[in-house]
Amino acid sequence: MRYRHFQELLELVNTKTDRKTVALVRAEDPHALEAVAEVTREGLVTPLLIGNREAIHQTAEQISFAITDDQILDAEDPESAASLGVQTVREGRADFLMKGKLETSQMLRPVVNKATGLGLGGVMSHVAVNEIPAYHKLLLTTDGGMLPYPTLEQKKSIIENAVKVMRKLGCDMPKVCVLAASETPNPKMPESMEALALKEMNQKGEIGDCIVEGPISFDLAMVKERAVVKNYQSPCAGDADILLVPNIHAGNILGKSLTEMAHAKMAGLIVGAKCPIVLTSRGSSAEEKFNSLMLACIVSG
Amino acid sequence: MRYRHFQELLELVNTKTDRKTVALVRAEDPHALEAVAEVTREGLVTPLLIGNREAIHQTAEQISFAITDDQILDAEDPESAASLGVQTVREGRADFLMKGKLETSQMLRPVVNKATGLGLGGVMSHVAVNEIPAYHKLLLTTDGGMLPYPTLEQKKSIIENAVKVMRKLGCDMPKVCVLAASETPNPKMPESMEALALKEMNQKGEIGDCIVEGPISFDLAMVKERAVVKNYQSPCAGDADILLVPNIHAGNILGKSLTEMAHAKMAGLIVGAKCPIVLTSRGSSAEEKFNSLMLACIVSG
Repeated sequence: MRYRHFQELLELVNTKTDRKTVALVRAEDPHALEAVAEVTREGLVTPLLIGNREAIHQTAEQISFAITDDQILDAEDPESAASLGVQTVREGRADFLMKGKLETSQMLRPVVNKATGLGLGGVMSHVAVNEIPAYHKLLLTTDGGMLPYPTLEQKKSIIENAVKVMRKLGCDMPKVCVLAASETPNPKMPESMEALALKEMNQKGEIGDCIVEGPISFDLAMVKERAVVKNYQSPCAGDADILLVPNIHAGNILGKSLTEMAHAKMAGLIVGAKCPIVLTSRGSSAEEKFNSLMLACIVSG
Repeated sequence: MRYRHFQELLELVNTKTDRKTVALVRAEDPHALEAVAEVTREGLVTPLLIGNREAIHQTAEQISFAITDDQILDAEDPESAASLGVQTVREGRADFLMKGKLETSQMLRPVVNKATGLGLGGVMSHVAVNEIPAYHKLLLTTDGGMLPYPTLEQKKSIIENAVKVMRKLGCDMPKVCVLAASETPNPKMPESMEALALKEMNQKGEIGDCIVEGPISFDLAMVKERAVVKNYQSPCAGDADILLVPNIHAGNILGKSLTEMAHAKMAGLIVGAKCPIVLTSRGSSAEEKFNSLMLACIVSG
């Protein structure tokens, strides 16, 4: 990964990709619409606003976002708005989705529909890209938001999803560290044995386009000096591009620790479907929403 | 918790507790002996050095630590050194133990011996006290090092062990946050249901001398503004004294994230036995060893 700051990704979007269309599902949400307004003003996206036409016009007016009537697609309830969003992606009218004023489960239901959804056969997973002042490059952490307790096969898919994101960011052979409490495989800790299994799959070519290391502790993955002191040898030591966490709790705790205590900036996406999905929450900062939309532009490219 | 910096604990040790005796097991370890030398010079402890007499003298000379022959207790191998260490505590000749040049499992075997060990009937657990620049007070995290997958009953004991440590640090009614990915109890996530159960035990008086909140996410536990935005009400919100993590992986990842990315200083101990046990590793900084020894002085008081 050659980039260290989200600011550099802004240049990447501006120079490398065409302007994308984001379908904002239930756009009558001031926080989400504000974020879409900002990336629209930056010239990154064309907005397609799905929901109650009148409510969307009102919300846009509140936040001084100039929109035209033909940028709105009518949908009266959350379910039909989500379905319409999925349809716009399938028809090529939108490049990616963003969740507005509806529940995550309502947003994802039509996405995962086998017949009419956006699935690609593999799993969908959450990726967070983090800009951490104490780290020398952008770091992807996964999965702290989608699959609570992934199986070994699902972890393989989570890695593959993350690797695809990194390749879109120009990192062709990302270093994947499968985290555990220790670097010693321990049969009493299934996470550590699965980490070893993932490393072996990578060595056999069953997980491609990346270098997988594991089990490995956070400090060995992130700080070269720690690896030197412990005489731990790995091309990934101190240079992780992707951290795979054991489960959703570890992932959520790590992500929040980085943003709240280590002053990290974050962008989050659901990936693994035909297009990325931006699922920020009311608690997300405006900057996080902006960065997530920017990342979606790159990933959907 | 009224303290924010380890420096303040140094004053607490100096003013509030008598000088403690630390039994360093297999003292012929330059890193551990150096740490003991430093706290000895600060006047915090009296050292009792267990191991090969000649090797200890040599090591002490290497690091210019002036010791006398009567500060050494002879033990030829790791097993007998650990047993002798335990015996010195049982006989009141030492106040707490520190691991030197031996494996953790060798150190703990005589400690957990039912007949001749240091058990108190409950579980032994690992506590880390963290000084985090982005947090307004010292924070205890547990258990990232001892019990890999604690049961509900063990989690109760882990909380009780941590509360005892906090009370030694002058925090009489610590706020305990039982971490999970979300603040909503979810039957599909056993960690979150156990967190709720621990909160209910606390409300019924089965876990005393503290306020337990859970399930709660890291950001709600640590940052008041996040709780305000989410309209989340709890006396613990943004003001956690103790974080209980779901398992050893989450605990290790969180601890390393705090020290390596959030510039936290750390002190670690095994507690729940008759005396605390300092188990630092070769990878621990000199400062971490010093802080851990200082914490042990307070906790064994």
